[in-house]
Amino acid sequence: MPTIVVEVMPKAELLDPAGKAVAGALARLGHTEFANVRIGKRFELTVEGPITEATLAAARTIAEEMLSNQVIEDVISVHEAPASGASA
Amino acid sequence: MPTIVVEVMPKAELLDPAGKAVAGALARLGHTEFANVRIGKRFELTVEGPITEATLAAARTIAEEMLSNQVIEDVISVHEAPASGASA
Repeated sequence: MPTIVVEVMPKAELLDPAGKAVAGALARLGHTEFANVRIGKRFELTVEGPITEATLAAARTIAEEMLSNQVIEDVISVHEAPASGASA
Repeated sequence: MPTIVVEVMPKAELLDPAGKAVAGALARLGHTEFANVRIGKRFELTVEGPITEATLAAARTIAEEMLSNQVIEDVISVHEAPASGASA
């Protein structure tokens, strides 16, 4: 079924303790090439029927109002997933 | 700074209770166009210096071994973020 992907990340000016912990663990394990890690969320909204501009607009509203906390998070992307849904 | 994005989602065959809760809430609020919601994670790994094939390979290894739990999650994408970092 068609899927809309919503990506939410913690605001850049806020500390991300979980991300900091992962960055520290990577450094201890020898992966010093990664300077920083931030952890956000990725939502997949499955849509019944085709994705229209109205569906995308509804998804954008939901992303701002319900899927993210605007005090601490930014919605960085709302887009249709590629047909197969998976890419590597 | 250049950034590698890692996307992790719960495996399709597993229940995602948080996603189910969001889907239920959306339906109660009148957003019946969304049949299902699944919630995964999105990591941003900041790289010092340019992103090489070796950096991407290291990120893929880290994604499989440390950023995801292979019993319940799939790494669906490891890719370089677009230059500005943000898109809507």
